[in-house]
Amino acid sequence: MLKKNSRLILGIDPGTALVGWGLVRQQGSRLSVQAHGCIKNPPQMPQSERLLRIYEQLTEVIAEHRPDAVAVEQLFFSKNVTTGISVAQARGVILLTAIQAGVTLAEYRPDQIKTSVCGYGRADKKQVQLMVKRLLGLKEIVKSDDTADALATAICHAHSSILDRVKIKK
Amino acid sequence: MLKKNSRLILGIDPGTALVGWGLVRQQGSRLSVQAHGCIKNPPQMPQSERLLRIYEQLTEVIAEHRPDAVAVEQLFFSKNVTTGISVAQARGVILLTAIQAGVTLAEYRPDQIKTSVCGYGRADKKQVQLMVKRLLGLKEIVKSDDTADALATAICHAHSSILDRVKIKK
Repeated sequence: MLKKNSRLILGIDPGTALVGWGLVRQQGSRLSVQAHGCIKNPPQMPQSERLLRIYEQLTEVIAEHRPDAVAVEQLFFSKNVTTGISVAQARGVILLTAIQAGVTLAEYRPDQIKTSVCGYGRADKKQVQLMVKRLLGLKEIVKSDDTADALATAICHAHSSILDRVKIKK
Repeated sequence: MLKKNSRLILGIDPGTALVGWGLVRQQGSRLSVQAHGCIKNPPQMPQSERLLRIYEQLTEVIAEHRPDAVAVEQLFFSKNVTTGISVAQARGVILLTAIQAGVTLAEYRPDQIKTSVCGYGRADKKQVQLMVKRLLGLKEIVKSDDTADALATAICHAHSSILDRVKIKK
């Protein structure tokens, strides 16, 4: 039986070719992985079909696991605006799946996620992978960057709500 | 009875606060309006709820009118990147509604639409409104910029397929 204060958080790392997702179970301050994966769209697949695939697969993940919250990384545009538009379009579809399921939605900036997980807002991918392994008590690192980022986003949301509770107690 | 070569095109002008849509009936080279409207999201409405509202209302428009094609304006980022990300997210949801309904999807750049409708890629909003009125045989101009742009996008798709046919005949 799960404790009353148990909560399931779905973290998502947006993309069009690769969409990482990770389910983190939070019981008090203890965190563990329930499931994780990565939606992989073939390179030759048109953008519109990618959107449909992302929508269908994430809707399935949410329906199967019924998370209490969905945490999604925010976007920041760098050099490539065309890629940026595509990723933002996919992110719109990702947000829609959470809203349609009536799940609480939280959004975090990349630097907030890295600070929460690594204690440093400019941590690199390797540091994120190592801290995700440590914080979730995994035997191995999660090799896919996108999946590790998704789990990190879920951890960030768990940490943020732990902090909220600490603040309330005061 | 509609002629065999009759085709219904849904044009959409993406946005988060305002999403214009317009249905243009194409019979040979003759164009007419079947319906048009604008999804208006209140300013205080959170982005995530806007996405759900856009999704639900466009899905309804497509289910009611069953267009043969959906034409959507492409995005170009100008100064405001934050607004750009929001509009791209909404556009992702807009594309999804068309793909889910199995409708042919076409995308046009703003300058392509203006050239097709006004003969000039840098036409202003007023010129677009006047040409939309003329090309669709309306008594009055369509006052909403967003709805006029949506109708212009549908006209652009109609023109583009007329040109395709002319090319094929040659």
